[in-house]
Amino acid sequence: MRINYNFLNLKETYIFSLIAKKVNDYKQQNPEKDIISLGIGDVTLPLVPAVVNAMHKAVSDMGSADTFKGYGEEQGYVFLREAVCNYYARKGVSIDKSEVFISDGAKSDIGNILDILDVDNRVIIPNPVYPVYVDTNIMTGRKIIFINGSPENNFLPLPDEGFQGDIVYICSPNNPTGGVYTKEQLKIWVDWALERQAIILFDSSYEAFIRDENMPTSIFQISEAARCAIEFCSFSKTAGFTGLRCGYTVIPHDLVRDKVSLNKLWLRRQTTKFNGVSYIVQRGAEAVFTEMGLRQTKEQIRYYLENARIMADNLTELGIWFTGGKNSPYIWLKCPNSMSSWDFFDFLLNRCSIVGTPGAGFGAKGEGFFRLTAFGSKNNVIEAMERIRKITT
Amino acid sequence: MRINYNFLNLKETYIFSLIAKKVNDYKQQNPEKDIISLGIGDVTLPLVPAVVNAMHKAVSDMGSADTFKGYGEEQGYVFLREAVCNYYARKGVSIDKSEVFISDGAKSDIGNILDILDVDNRVIIPNPVYPVYVDTNIMTGRKIIFINGSPENNFLPLPDEGFQGDIVYICSPNNPTGGVYTKEQLKIWVDWALERQAIILFDSSYEAFIRDENMPTSIFQISEAARCAIEFCSFSKTAGFTGLRCGYTVIPHDLVRDKVSLNKLWLRRQTTKFNGVSYIVQRGAEAVFTEMGLRQTKEQIRYYLENARIMADNLTELGIWFTGGKNSPYIWLKCPNSMSSWDFFDFLLNRCSIVGTPGAGFGAKGEGFFRLTAFGSKNNVIEAMERIRKITT
Repeated sequence: MRINYNFLNLKETYIFSLIAKKVNDYKQQNPEKDIISLGIGDVTLPLVPAVVNAMHKAVSDMGSADTFKGYGEEQGYVFLREAVCNYYARKGVSIDKSEVFISDGAKSDIGNILDILDVDNRVIIPNPVYPVYVDTNIMTGRKIIFINGSPENNFLPLPDEGFQGDIVYICSPNNPTGGVYTKEQLKIWVDWALERQAIILFDSSYEAFIRDENMPTSIFQISEAARCAIEFCSFSKTAGFTGLRCGYTVIPHDLVRDKVSLNKLWLRRQTTKFNGVSYIVQRGAEAVFTEMGLRQTKEQIRYYLENARIMADNLTELGIWFTGGKNSPYIWLKCPNSMSSWDFFDFLLNRCSIVGTPGAGFGAKGEGFFRLTAFGSKNNVIEAMERIRKITT
Repeated sequence: MRINYNFLNLKETYIFSLIAKKVNDYKQQNPEKDIISLGIGDVTLPLVPAVVNAMHKAVSDMGSADTFKGYGEEQGYVFLREAVCNYYARKGVSIDKSEVFISDGAKSDIGNILDILDVDNRVIIPNPVYPVYVDTNIMTGRKIIFINGSPENNFLPLPDEGFQGDIVYICSPNNPTGGVYTKEQLKIWVDWALERQAIILFDSSYEAFIRDENMPTSIFQISEAARCAIEFCSFSKTAGFTGLRCGYTVIPHDLVRDKVSLNKLWLRRQTTKFNGVSYIVQRGAEAVFTEMGLRQTKEQIRYYLENARIMADNLTELGIWFTGGKNSPYIWLKCPNSMSSWDFFDFLLNRCSIVGTPGAGFGAKGEGFFRLTAFGSKNNVIEAMERIRKITT
């Protein structure tokens, strides 16, 4: 029996364990210090009442013979898929419920989608990037072509003429840079993909943070994208579902390659290797899309965006270059004084008792940059900014 | 962009849609008939109170700032992994919590485990079998060697001397045949695997149905199995979690191939392509292993086993050959009068208004056999047996 040797090509992800170790050491040496984390990529506000109430009802359903649910559809309950379609309709995007697949989160689907795609495809991945895109491709022995983000392109790379590839990952609003592609920029990617019969794997997990009505919240707002794109979305950051686990993937019927419908391939993959999402969680997700659920979750996002605004305003005043902080919970800043990512990490921790995430952890092109997140409390964000101002002015 | 062409080698799974069509046609032609399904592979009793109460509490936890949970460990909460270890300890099996992986169901893990194994391994799959084993291997282009079940081996095949292969799937208690391997028989498989450095993928999803204390409920009750086996288990049939989605996979640290720990490979796979199971569901699963939860779920299994016993007793009296029906919710019978699986299906439907599952749907060696399940109501089972007796006596 032989293992999948491709796994041996994976880099160990030291970044978060190294952060934890450094923070721990600092705590032991400075027990009196109040450490503020601006590095956390997880929500902190509890679930909204609309979701909690729906799930209590669903739990009761499961305890009663006449309302008990066994196996659900692998693709997700119709009630939730219809709610997703209605949510898209509000964005001006028309999709059918048979094009929606409910899953236990965007991360699972983004990894598993490779099951239906040939191993020999050339894969384009931006750098820096959410590490899952890279690692899942290394695991399957695929050839990766990096396309570089930089301050010049605001970390939103676009294809040059003649740029070759079969599959491209796009995350907008972006993790880690907080950048958001405009409709015109996404149209460039769509045209590029259509010309080459390539496909776009579009990660819109942070779409709910977009407040600017001119910015696209779905790749399918771009004309003809249904012929070249798959969209992954999630309730994790939209409604604080990181611990509940629910997402959805949209594969249009118009997406056909080698005369085969990718929707049909994915349906076959999911019915064979997946058994659907918990009924209770799907009822909670359905509640997100009710009027009350939308209002309550929007209020939470507004809270996080206010944190981002406070950080952005302070960085602007301090003259520090950054992207994000608007239409996104992330801020991606250039480390001052040409510090490396890790030097700036140490500097912020030792001088301000603030924890962030070194950009180098997201790829080679993240070196010299640093990620701050807006998922903490407002008071902590204000306090953190005061500490930074103190040492820089 | 090229698709994964291996998907084109999959057979369309007509069986359940064909059953649905035939039942529907029969209903339309015979609207007055009371159809009894003995074909359902899904639980019907609602969740037990211990689980329902634990999940109500967990839902409330998620709605309150001081008890809210964001991302959990991909491998599962320690509270649940420790509960699994304690459950194994009751079986005389010592495992560490780092050897337990909580998932959204055995089906997911059984499919996804192939991610960490080389494509060129030779895969042995019994015939007839749970179709997921076959389809997930076809999807990845693996070479399958079938090992045949038959009345002679009670549909519990064992390796002949010199039998070659790298990976073998064993399901005990078996779906669809209801057969259970003895310790001596499993020892033959373990010795075979150890000699060849092969591995056993052991599906113990139905272990809770074993009431005979001499029968193994875990492959790890066989000495040295920790060096050659991965065990997949589930709360689906143990506690009626088919609609909740929770399972667990045990990969011992002793399982090493190519000098690499399969536990470490799977951990890397899961941390990269999975984000853990819903906190609420994990609290429900934890409750299954409390004294109250074990008592309540055992009572449900006793109910299903009583249904199986009624069917088994009737078939015995009628002189129909079968396996299962004891230590299993399934009965696998030889179609009377040398009927084919589908002929017997039509016969039962048209003469008795009873729906079962044609054995041919589980592989070529299932032809001429038929599966009945014990997940219905006791009254229906009794009524169904009376109908069968009427036409055969």
